[in-house]
Amino acid sequence: MLKLLVIGIGAGNPEHMTVQAIKALNRADIVLLPRKGSAKEDLAELRREICRRFLETKKTRIVEFDLPRRDGGDAYLKTVDDWHAAIAATYRDLLARELPDGGTAAFLVWGDPSLYDSTLRILDRLRTTHSVAFEPEVIPGITSVQALAASHAMPLNTIGNPVLTTTGRKLRDAPPDAADTIVVMLDGDMSFRHVAQDDYAIYWGAYLGLEQEMIVAGDLAEKASEIEAKRTAAREENGWIMDVYVLKRKGGKGLNG
Amino acid sequence: MLKLLVIGIGAGNPEHMTVQAIKALNRADIVLLPRKGSAKEDLAELRREICRRFLETKKTRIVEFDLPRRDGGDAYLKTVDDWHAAIAATYRDLLARELPDGGTAAFLVWGDPSLYDSTLRILDRLRTTHSVAFEPEVIPGITSVQALAASHAMPLNTIGNPVLTTTGRKLRDAPPDAADTIVVMLDGDMSFRHVAQDDYAIYWGAYLGLEQEMIVAGDLAEKASEIEAKRTAAREENGWIMDVYVLKRKGGKGLNG
Repeated sequence: MLKLLVIGIGAGNPEHMTVQAIKALNRADIVLLPRKGSAKEDLAELRREICRRFLETKKTRIVEFDLPRRDGGDAYLKTVDDWHAAIAATYRDLLARELPDGGTAAFLVWGDPSLYDSTLRILDRLRTTHSVAFEPEVIPGITSVQALAASHAMPLNTIGNPVLTTTGRKLRDAPPDAADTIVVMLDGDMSFRHVAQDDYAIYWGAYLGLEQEMIVAGDLAEKASEIEAKRTAAREENGWIMDVYVLKRKGGKGLNG
Repeated sequence: MLKLLVIGIGAGNPEHMTVQAIKALNRADIVLLPRKGSAKEDLAELRREICRRFLETKKTRIVEFDLPRRDGGDAYLKTVDDWHAAIAATYRDLLARELPDGGTAAFLVWGDPSLYDSTLRILDRLRTTHSVAFEPEVIPGITSVQALAASHAMPLNTIGNPVLTTTGRKLRDAPPDAADTIVVMLDGDMSFRHVAQDDYAIYWGAYLGLEQEMIVAGDLAEKASEIEAKRTAAREENGWIMDVYVLKRKGGKGLNG
Protein backbone atom coordinates (compact mmCIF):
# COMPACT_ATOMS: atom_id res chain seq x y z
CA MET A 1 0.00 0.00 0.00
CA LEU A 2 1.17 3.49 -0.87
CA LYS A 3 0.73 6.26 1.67
CA LEU A 4 1.27 9.87 0.62
CA LEU A 5 1.88 12.45 3.35
CA VAL A 6 1.30 16.05 2.36
CA ILE A 7 3.01 18.05 5.09
CA GLY A 8 2.59 21.78 5.62
CA ILE A 9 6.01 23.07 6.69
CA GLY A 10 5.14 26.68 7.43
CA ALA A 11 5.99 29.99 5.87
CA GLY A 12 9.79 29.98 5.91
CA ASN A 13 10.77 29.79 9.58
CA PRO A 14 11.76 26.13 10.22
CA GLU A 15 10.29 26.56 13.72
CA HIS A 16 6.83 26.82 12.17
CA MET A 17 7.03 23.01 11.98
CA THR A 18 4.38 21.44 14.21
CA VAL A 19 4.95 18.38 16.39
CA GLN A 20 2.48 16.60 14.09
CA ALA A 21 4.52 17.55 11.01
CA ILE A 22 7.80 16.40 12.60
CA LYS A 23 6.27 13.05 13.51
CA ALA A 24 4.83 12.64 10.00
CA LEU A 25 8.22 13.44 8.44
CA ASN A 26 9.77 10.69 10.54
CA ARG A 27 7.19 8.17 9.34
CA ALA A 28 8.22 8.62 5.71
CA ASP A 29 10.33 6.10 3.80
CA ILE A 30 11.16 8.80 1.28
CA VAL A 31 10.90 12.59 1.24
CA LEU A 32 10.47 14.08 -2.24
CA LEU A 33 12.38 17.35 -2.54
CA PRO A 34 12.04 19.37 -5.74
CA ARG A 35 15.22 21.09 -6.87
CA LYS A 36 14.44 24.65 -7.86
CA GLY A 37 16.13 26.95 -10.31
CA SER A 38 18.97 28.98 -8.84
CA ALA A 39 16.70 31.96 -8.17
CA LYS A 40 14.78 30.08 -5.51
CA GLU A 41 17.76 28.09 -4.24
CA ASP A 42 17.13 29.64 -0.78
CA LEU A 43 13.78 27.87 -0.61
CA ALA A 44 15.11 24.49 -1.75
CA GLU A 45 17.82 24.85 0.89
CA LEU A 46 15.21 25.55 3.56
CA ARG A 47 13.44 22.31 2.77
CA ARG A 48 16.78 20.51 3.16
CA GLU A 49 17.37 22.30 6.46
CA ILE A 50 14.01 21.11 7.74
CA CYS A 51 14.98 17.51 6.91
CA ARG A 52 18.43 17.85 8.52
CA ARG A 53 16.98 19.38 11.64
CA PHE A 54 13.87 17.29 12.20
CA LEU A 55 14.54 13.86 10.69
CA GLU A 56 15.56 11.63 13.57
CA THR A 57 15.70 8.38 11.66
CA LYS A 58 18.33 7.13 9.24
CA LYS A 59 15.86 5.01 7.34
CA THR A 60 14.23 7.95 5.58
CA ARG A 61 15.72 8.67 2.18
CA ILE A 62 15.75 12.15 0.66
CA VAL A 63 14.94 11.97 -3.04
CA GLU A 64 15.71 15.17 -4.93
CA PHE A 65 14.15 15.57 -8.36
CA ASP A 66 13.58 18.17 -11.06
CA LEU A 67 10.06 19.57 -11.31
CA PRO A 68 8.81 20.24 -14.83
CA ARG A 69 9.23 24.01 -15.25
CA ARG A 70 6.53 26.21 -16.65
CA ASP A 71 8.98 28.92 -17.56
CA GLY A 72 11.65 26.60 -18.86
CA GLY A 73 10.80 26.84 -22.51
CA ASP A 74 8.62 23.74 -22.54
CA ALA A 75 6.08 25.11 -24.95
CA TYR A 76 3.56 22.36 -24.32
CA LEU A 77 3.23 23.39 -20.65
CA LYS A 78 1.31 26.48 -21.60
CA THR A 79 -1.66 25.98 -19.33
CA VAL A 80 -1.80 25.21 -15.61
CA ASP A 81 -3.59 22.02 -16.56
CA ASP A 82 -0.71 20.84 -18.80
CA TRP A 83 1.80 21.75 -16.14
CA HIS A 84 -0.01 19.83 -13.42
CA ALA A 85 -0.32 16.84 -15.75
CA ALA A 86 3.45 16.89 -16.30
CA ILE A 87 4.12 17.05 -12.54
CA ALA A 88 1.70 14.17 -11.90
CA ALA A 89 3.59 12.04 -14.47
CA THR A 90 6.86 12.93 -12.71
CA TYR A 91 5.41 11.85 -9.35
CA ARG A 92 4.11 8.61 -10.84
CA ASP A 93 7.57 7.74 -12.21
CA LEU A 94 9.35 8.70 -8.98
CA LEU A 95 7.01 6.66 -6.79
CA ALA A 96 7.23 3.63 -9.09
CA ARG A 97 11.03 3.83 -9.04
CA GLU A 98 11.57 4.62 -5.35
CA LEU A 99 8.73 2.67 -3.72
CA PRO A 100 8.04 -0.24 -6.08
CA ASP A 101 6.62 -2.32 -3.22
CA GLY A 102 4.64 0.48 -1.58
CA GLY A 103 5.53 2.48 1.50
CA THR A 104 5.23 6.08 2.67
CA ALA A 105 6.29 9.17 0.73
CA ALA A 106 6.25 12.72 2.09
CA PHE A 107 5.70 15.93 0.12
CA LEU A 108 6.79 19.11 1.93
CA VAL A 109 4.49 22.02 1.12
CA TRP A 110 5.18 25.68 1.93
CA GLY A 111 2.47 27.17 4.11
CA ASP A 112 -0.61 24.98 4.35
CA PRO A 113 -1.57 22.34 1.76
CA SER A 114 -5.11 23.76 1.58
CA LEU A 115 -4.29 27.33 0.51
CA TYR A 116 -3.03 28.21 -2.97
CA ASP A 117 -1.04 25.03 -3.30
CA SER A 118 -1.62 22.43 -5.99
CA THR A 119 -0.07 19.33 -4.45
CA LEU A 120 -3.43 17.80 -3.46
CA ARG A 121 -4.89 18.49 -6.89
CA ILE A 122 -1.86 16.96 -8.60
CA LEU A 123 -1.98 13.87 -6.38
CA ASP A 124 -5.63 13.50 -7.32
CA ARG A 125 -4.45 13.07 -10.91
CA LEU A 126 -2.28 10.14 -9.83
CA ARG A 127 -5.49 8.38 -8.98
CA THR A 128 -7.71 9.60 -11.81
CA THR A 129 -5.25 9.70 -14.72
CA HIS A 130 -2.64 7.14 -13.73
CA SER A 131 -4.73 4.71 -11.65
CA VAL A 132 -2.22 4.86 -8.79
CA ALA A 133 -3.95 3.74 -5.57
CA PHE A 134 -2.85 5.54 -2.41
CA GLU A 135 -4.00 6.76 0.95
CA PRO A 136 -3.48 10.51 1.45
CA GLU A 137 -2.79 12.16 4.80
CA VAL A 138 -2.61 15.93 5.14
CA ILE A 139 -0.78 17.76 7.94
CA PRO A 140 -1.71 21.44 8.27
CA GLY A 141 0.97 24.13 8.39
CA ILE A 142 1.37 27.81 9.23
CA THR A 143 0.67 30.05 6.21
CA SER A 144 2.43 33.27 5.23
CA VAL A 145 -0.84 35.09 6.05
CA GLN A 146 -0.61 33.92 9.65
CA ALA A 147 3.09 34.81 9.81
CA LEU A 148 2.22 38.26 8.45
CA ALA A 149 -0.51 38.85 11.04
CA ALA A 150 1.85 37.66 13.79
CA SER A 151 4.66 39.97 12.68
CA HIS A 152 2.25 42.91 12.69
CA ALA A 153 0.73 41.64 15.98
CA MET A 154 -2.70 42.21 14.49
CA PRO A 155 -6.01 40.40 14.12
CA LEU A 156 -7.11 39.84 10.52
CA ASN A 157 -10.85 40.28 10.95
CA THR A 158 -12.67 43.13 12.63
CA ILE A 159 -15.07 41.87 15.32
CA GLY A 160 -17.41 39.23 13.88
CA ASN A 161 -16.75 40.37 10.30
CA PRO A 162 -15.63 38.43 7.21
CA VAL A 163 -12.22 38.22 5.56
CA LEU A 164 -11.75 37.78 1.82
CA THR A 165 -8.61 35.94 0.73
CA THR A 166 -7.76 36.48 -2.91
CA THR A 167 -4.93 36.75 -5.43
CA GLY A 168 -3.29 39.78 -7.00
CA ARG A 169 -4.97 38.92 -10.29
CA LYS A 170 -8.44 38.67 -8.75
CA LEU A 171 -8.15 41.68 -6.45
CA ARG A 172 -9.95 44.04 -8.81
CA ASP A 173 -12.88 41.61 -9.08
CA ALA A 174 -13.47 41.59 -5.33
CA PRO A 175 -16.96 42.95 -4.56
CA PRO A 176 -16.31 46.09 -2.47
CA ASP A 177 -18.83 45.03 0.16
CA ALA A 178 -17.57 41.45 0.50
CA ALA A 179 -15.29 42.17 3.47
CA ASP A 180 -13.52 45.06 5.17
CA THR A 181 -10.38 42.90 5.37
CA ILE A 182 -8.80 41.58 2.17
CA VAL A 183 -5.83 39.21 2.21
CA VAL A 184 -3.86 39.26 -1.05
CA MET A 185 -1.58 36.36 -1.99
CA LEU A 186 0.28 35.41 -5.18
CA ASP A 187 0.60 39.02 -6.28
CA GLY A 188 3.58 39.42 -8.58
CA ASP A 189 2.37 42.78 -9.82
CA MET A 190 1.70 44.91 -6.73
CA SER A 191 -2.01 45.11 -7.48
CA PHE A 192 -2.50 47.29 -4.40
CA ARG A 193 -1.52 50.16 -6.71
CA HIS A 194 -4.91 49.85 -8.40
CA VAL A 195 -7.07 49.95 -5.24
CA ALA A 196 -8.82 53.14 -4.02
CA GLN A 197 -5.76 54.38 -2.13
CA ASP A 198 -7.55 56.58 0.39
CA ASP A 199 -9.93 53.87 1.57
CA TYR A 200 -7.41 51.33 2.84
CA ALA A 201 -4.54 50.71 5.20
CA ILE A 202 -1.96 48.14 4.10
CA TYR A 203 -0.03 45.57 6.17
CA TRP A 204 2.68 44.15 3.94
CA GLY A 205 5.42 41.60 4.48
CA ALA A 206 8.04 39.76 2.43
CA TYR A 207 10.34 36.80 3.18
CA LEU A 208 8.21 36.18 6.29
CA GLY A 209 9.94 33.97 8.83
CA LEU A 210 13.26 34.24 6.99
CA GLU A 211 16.34 36.26 7.90
CA GLN A 212 15.47 38.84 5.26
CA GLU A 213 11.91 39.40 6.60
CA MET A 214 10.64 42.93 6.04
CA ILE A 215 7.28 44.44 6.97
CA VAL A 216 5.60 47.79 6.30
CA ALA A 217 2.27 49.07 7.65
CA GLY A 218 0.30 52.27 7.25
CA ASP A 219 -2.13 54.15 5.05
CA LEU A 220 -2.03 52.70 1.56
CA ALA A 221 -1.78 56.15 -0.04
CA GLU A 222 1.30 56.88 2.04
CA LYS A 223 3.01 53.50 1.89
CA ALA A 224 2.37 52.24 -1.66
CA SER A 225 5.48 53.77 -3.18
CA GLU A 226 7.69 52.81 -0.20
CA ILE A 227 6.58 49.19 -0.57
CA GLU A 228 7.09 49.33 -4.32
CA ALA A 229 10.67 50.58 -3.88
CA LYS A 230 11.52 48.07 -1.14
CA ARG A 231 10.02 45.19 -3.06
CA THR A 232 11.88 46.02 -6.25
CA ALA A 233 15.22 46.43 -4.45
CA ALA A 234 14.80 43.24 -2.40
CA ARG A 235 13.82 41.22 -5.42
CA GLU A 236 16.91 42.45 -7.23
CA GLU A 237 19.16 41.67 -4.27
CA ASN A 238 17.80 38.20 -3.49
CA GLY A 239 16.92 37.11 -7.01
CA TRP A 240 13.39 36.23 -5.87
CA ILE A 241 10.68 37.53 -3.55
CA MET A 242 7.60 36.11 -1.86
CA ASP A 243 5.29 38.64 -0.29
CA VAL A 244 1.75 38.87 1.03
CA TYR A 245 -0.39 41.71 2.34
CA VAL A 246 -3.63 42.65 4.00
CA LEU A 247 -5.80 45.60 3.02
CA LYS A 248 -8.06 46.94 5.77
CA ARG A 249 -10.81 49.35 4.93
CA LYS A 250 -10.30 52.47 7.02
CA GLY A 251 -12.99 53.34 9.51
CA GLY A 252 -13.42 49.67 10.37
CA LYS A 253 -13.60 48.93 14.06
CA GLY A 254 -11.04 47.16 16.19
CA LEU A 255 -7.28 47.08 16.67
CA ASN A 256 -5.35 48.58 13.77
CA GLY A 257 -8.57 49.70 12.10
CA MET B 1 9.66 45.56 31.14
CA LEU B 2 6.55 43.48 30.52
CA LYS B 3 6.50 41.08 27.60
CA LEU B 4 3.21 39.49 26.55
CA LEU B 5 3.35 36.37 24.40
CA VAL B 6 0.18 35.53 22.51
CA ILE B 7 0.66 31.92 21.45
CA GLY B 8 -1.52 30.09 18.93
CA ILE B 9 -1.84 26.53 20.23
CA GLY B 10 -3.75 24.96 17.35
CA ALA B 11 -7.22 23.58 16.92
CA GLY B 12 -7.41 20.92 19.63
CA ASN B 13 -4.69 18.41 18.81
CA PRO B 14 -1.76 19.17 21.17
CA GLU B 15 0.55 18.13 18.31
CA HIS B 16 -0.54 21.21 16.38
CA MET B 17 1.95 23.05 18.61
CA THR B 18 4.81 24.46 16.54
CA VAL B 19 8.46 24.43 17.60
CA GLN B 20 8.19 28.22 17.80
CA ALA B 21 5.18 27.97 20.15
CA ILE B 22 6.92 25.43 22.40
CA LYS B 23 9.98 27.66 22.67
CA ALA B 24 7.83 30.70 23.42
CA LEU B 25 5.95 28.80 26.14
CA ASN B 26 9.26 27.97 27.77
CA ARG B 27 10.31 31.63 27.80
CA ALA B 28 7.32 32.60 29.94
CA ASP B 29 7.55 33.39 33.64
CA ILE B 30 3.82 32.81 33.95
CA VAL B 31 1.18 31.19 31.75
CA LEU B 32 -2.33 32.58 32.23
CA LEU B 33 -4.94 29.82 31.99
CA PRO B 34 -8.61 30.77 32.10
CA ARG B 35 -10.80 28.32 34.00
CA LYS B 36 -13.90 27.61 31.98
CA GLY B 37 -17.35 26.61 33.11
CA SER B 38 -17.87 22.87 33.39
CA ALA B 39 -19.33 22.64 29.88
CA LYS B 40 -15.99 23.48 28.30
CA GLU B 41 -13.88 21.71 30.92
CA ASP B 42 -12.43 19.57 28.11
CA LEU B 43 -10.88 22.67 26.57
CA ALA B 44 -9.45 24.00 29.82
CA GLU B 45 -7.96 20.55 30.39
CA LEU B 46 -6.38 20.61 26.93
CA ARG B 47 -4.57 23.85 27.74
CA ARG B 48 -3.26 22.20 30.92
CA GLU B 49 -2.15 19.16 28.93
CA ILE B 50 -0.21 21.39 26.56
CA CYS B 51 1.61 22.93 29.54
CA ARG B 52 2.33 19.53 31.10
CA ARG B 53 3.60 18.12 27.86
CA PHE B 54 5.65 20.99 26.47
CA LEU B 55 6.89 23.01 29.46
CA GLU B 56 10.45 21.88 30.08
CA THR B 57 11.33 24.39 32.76
CA LYS B 58 10.29 24.45 36.40
CA LYS B 59 10.53 28.24 36.60
CA THR B 60 7.32 28.83 34.66
CA ARG B 61 4.28 29.26 36.89
CA ILE B 62 0.77 28.33 35.72
CA VAL B 63 -1.72 30.95 36.91
CA GLU B 64 -5.34 29.86 36.62
CA PHE B 65 -8.00 32.54 36.82
CA ASP B 66 -11.70 33.11 36.23
CA LEU B 67 -12.62 34.97 33.08
CA PRO B 68 -15.55 37.39 33.40
CA ARG B 69 -18.48 35.48 31.91
CA ARG B 70 -20.86 37.01 29.43
CA ASP B 71 -23.54 34.49 30.20
CA GLY B 72 -23.02 34.49 33.95
CA GLY B 73 -25.75 36.90 34.82
CA ASP B 74 -23.48 39.95 34.91
CA ALA B 75 -26.02 42.31 33.43
CA TYR B 76 -23.48 45.04 32.75
CA LEU B 77 -21.57 42.78 30.36
CA LYS B 78 -24.26 43.05 27.76
CA THR B 79 -22.12 44.17 24.86
CA VAL B 80 -18.92 42.69 23.49
CA ASP B 81 -17.29 45.99 24.32
CA ASP B 82 -18.26 45.77 28.03
CA TRP B 83 -17.11 42.17 28.16
CA HIS B 84 -13.72 42.94 26.62
CA ALA B 85 -13.32 45.85 29.05
CA ALA B 86 -13.97 43.50 31.99
CA ILE B 87 -11.42 40.98 30.68
CA ALA B 88 -8.83 43.73 30.18
CA ALA B 89 -9.32 44.82 33.82
CA THR B 90 -8.86 41.20 34.92
CA TYR B 91 -5.61 40.94 32.94
CA ARG B 92 -4.36 44.23 34.40
CA ASP B 93 -4.94 42.98 37.96
CA LEU B 94 -3.40 39.56 37.27
CA LEU B 95 -0.28 41.03 35.69
CA ALA B 96 0.16 43.58 38.50
CA ARG B 97 -0.17 40.83 41.11
CA GLU B 98 1.90 38.10 39.42
CA LEU B 99 4.58 40.16 37.68
CA PRO B 100 4.95 43.33 39.79
CA ASP B 101 8.52 43.82 38.58
CA GLY B 102 7.89 42.94 34.93
CA GLY B 103 8.66 39.70 33.14
CA THR B 104 7.06 37.53 30.48
CA ALA B 105 3.47 36.31 30.49
CA ALA B 106 1.99 33.88 27.97
CA PHE B 107 -1.61 33.72 26.75
CA LEU B 108 -2.59 30.47 25.03
CA VAL B 109 -5.03 31.05 22.19
CA TRP B 110 -7.03 28.34 20.38
CA GLY B 111 -6.31 28.33 16.67
CA ASP B 112 -4.44 31.41 15.49
CA PRO B 113 -4.43 34.74 17.36
CA SER B 114 -5.33 36.58 14.13
CA LEU B 115 -8.61 34.82 13.31
CA TYR B 116 -11.80 35.36 15.30
CA ASP B 117 -9.97 35.73 18.58
CA SER B 118 -10.08 38.83 20.75
CA THR B 119 -6.92 38.47 22.82
CA LEU B 120 -4.95 41.02 20.77
CA ARG B 121 -7.80 43.50 20.88
CA ILE B 122 -8.16 43.06 24.64
CA LEU B 123 -4.42 43.49 25.20
CA ASP B 124 -4.63 46.69 23.19
CA ARG B 125 -6.98 47.99 25.90
CA LEU B 126 -4.31 47.34 28.52
CA ARG B 127 -2.28 49.98 26.76
CA THR B 128 -5.01 52.42 25.80
CA THR B 129 -7.35 52.20 28.81
CA HIS B 130 -5.01 51.14 31.61
CA SER B 131 -1.71 52.67 30.46
CA VAL B 132 0.10 49.35 30.89
CA ALA B 133 3.29 49.40 28.80
CA PHE B 134 4.26 46.08 27.23
CA GLU B 135 5.91 44.49 24.25
CA PRO B 136 3.65 42.03 22.40
CA GLU B 137 4.89 38.98 20.52
CA VAL B 138 2.51 36.82 18.51
CA ILE B 139 3.15 33.17 17.58
CA PRO B 140 0.90 31.82 14.82
CA GLY B 141 -1.05 28.59 15.28
CA ILE B 142 -3.01 26.06 13.23
CA THR B 143 -6.68 27.03 12.90
CA SER B 144 -9.72 24.76 12.89
CA VAL B 145 -10.18 25.67 9.22
CA GLN B 146 -6.79 24.19 8.40
CA ALA B 147 -7.52 21.12 10.51
CA LEU B 148 -10.83 20.74 8.66
CA ALA B 149 -9.22 20.97 5.22
CA ALA B 150 -6.54 18.47 6.32
CA SER B 151 -9.11 15.97 7.62
CA HIS B 152 -10.99 16.19 4.32
CA ALA B 153 -7.64 16.11 2.43
CA MET B 154 -8.91 18.99 0.32
CA PRO B 155 -7.72 22.37 -0.94
CA LEU B 156 -9.86 25.30 0.17
CA ASN B 157 -9.62 27.45 -2.94
CA THR B 158 -10.29 26.42 -6.51
CA ILE B 159 -7.31 27.26 -8.78
CA GLY B 160 -6.40 30.94 -8.43
CA ASN B 161 -9.79 31.82 -6.96
CA PRO B 162 -10.75 33.64 -3.76
CA VAL B 163 -12.00 32.26 -0.44
CA LEU B 164 -14.43 34.13 1.80
CA THR B 165 -14.12 33.43 5.53
CA THR B 166 -17.18 34.53 7.48
CA THR B 167 -19.36 33.76 10.49
CA GLY B 168 -22.69 31.98 10.77
CA ARG B 169 -24.35 35.30 11.50
CA LYS B 170 -22.87 37.01 8.43
CA LEU B 171 -23.30 34.11 6.01
CA ARG B 172 -26.51 35.44 4.52
CA ASP B 173 -24.84 38.82 3.84
CA ALA B 174 -22.09 37.23 1.74
CA PRO B 175 -22.28 38.55 -1.83
CA PRO B 176 -22.96 35.44 -3.95
CA ASP B 177 -20.19 36.34 -6.39
CA ALA B 178 -17.54 37.05 -3.75
CA ALA B 179 -16.05 33.55 -3.81
CA ASP B 180 -16.93 30.01 -4.83
CA THR B 181 -15.48 28.79 -1.51
CA ILE B 182 -16.98 30.03 1.76
CA VAL B 183 -15.49 29.13 5.15
CA VAL B 184 -17.99 29.49 7.99
CA MET B 185 -16.82 29.84 11.59
CA LEU B 186 -18.58 30.71 14.86
CA ASP B 187 -21.88 29.28 13.68
CA GLY B 188 -24.01 28.24 16.64
CA ASP B 189 -27.14 28.09 14.53
CA MET B 190 -26.34 25.85 11.53
CA SER B 191 -26.79 28.71 9.09
CA PHE B 192 -26.03 26.35 6.21
CA ARG B 193 -29.73 25.48 6.41
CA HIS B 194 -30.53 28.88 4.89
CA VAL B 195 -28.20 28.64 1.87
CA ALA B 196 -29.41 27.64 -1.62
CA GLN B 197 -29.08 23.91 -0.93
CA ASP B 198 -28.69 22.74 -4.50
CA ASP B 199 -25.82 25.09 -5.31
CA TYR B 200 -23.31 23.92 -2.71
CA ALA B 201 -21.35 21.00 -1.37
CA ILE B 202 -20.52 21.07 2.35
CA TYR B 203 -17.38 19.90 4.17
CA TRP B 204 -18.17 19.92 7.87
CA GLY B 205 -16.19 18.99 10.96
CA ALA B 206 -16.56 19.16 14.75
CA TYR B 207 -14.10 18.64 17.64
CA LEU B 208 -11.30 18.77 15.04
CA GLY B 209 -8.06 17.31 16.32
CA LEU B 210 -9.78 15.85 19.39
CA GLU B 211 -10.69 12.26 20.12
CA GLN B 212 -14.34 12.99 19.31
CA GLU B 213 -13.54 14.44 15.86
CA MET B 214 -16.30 13.89 13.31
CA ILE B 215 -16.48 14.98 9.68
CA VAL B 216 -19.16 14.85 7.00
CA ALA B 217 -18.88 15.80 3.31
CA GLY B 218 -21.26 15.80 0.38
CA ASP B 219 -23.98 17.72 -1.40
CA LEU B 220 -25.51 20.21 1.00
CA ALA B 221 -29.06 19.19 0.07
CA GLU B 222 -28.24 15.59 0.97
CA LYS B 223 -26.12 16.17 4.06
CA ALA B 224 -27.77 19.09 5.86
CA SER B 225 -30.13 16.99 7.97
CA GLU B 226 -27.45 14.37 8.72
CA ILE B 227 -25.14 17.10 10.03
CA GLU B 228 -27.98 18.68 12.00
CA ALA B 229 -28.74 15.34 13.71
CA LYS B 230 -25.09 14.54 14.43
CA ARG B 231 -24.39 18.02 15.73
CA THR B 232 -27.38 18.01 18.07
CA ALA B 233 -26.56 14.55 19.46
CA ALA B 234 -22.86 15.32 19.94
CA ARG B 235 -23.58 18.61 21.66
CA GLU B 236 -25.91 16.83 24.03
CA GLU B 237 -23.38 14.10 24.75
CA ASN B 238 -20.33 16.33 25.26
CA GLY B 239 -22.06 19.32 26.79
CA TRP B 240 -20.43 21.58 24.17
CA ILE B 241 -19.49 21.61 20.51
CA MET B 242 -17.12 23.52 18.28
CA ASP B 243 -17.58 23.04 14.57
CA VAL B 244 -16.58 24.69 11.31
CA TYR B 245 -17.44 24.07 7.68
CA VAL B 246 -16.71 24.97 4.11
CA LEU B 247 -19.32 25.54 1.41
CA LYS B 248 -18.13 24.99 -2.16
CA ARG B 249 -20.22 26.13 -5.06
CA LYS B 250 -20.89 23.15 -7.27
CA GLY B 251 -19.54 23.25 -10.79
CA GLY B 252 -16.35 24.90 -9.53
CA LYS B 253 -13.16 23.40 -10.93
CA GLY B 254 -10.59 21.34 -9.10
CA LEU B 255 -10.49 18.57 -6.53
CA ASN B 256 -13.74 18.08 -4.63
CA GLY B 257 -15.53 20.60 -6.80
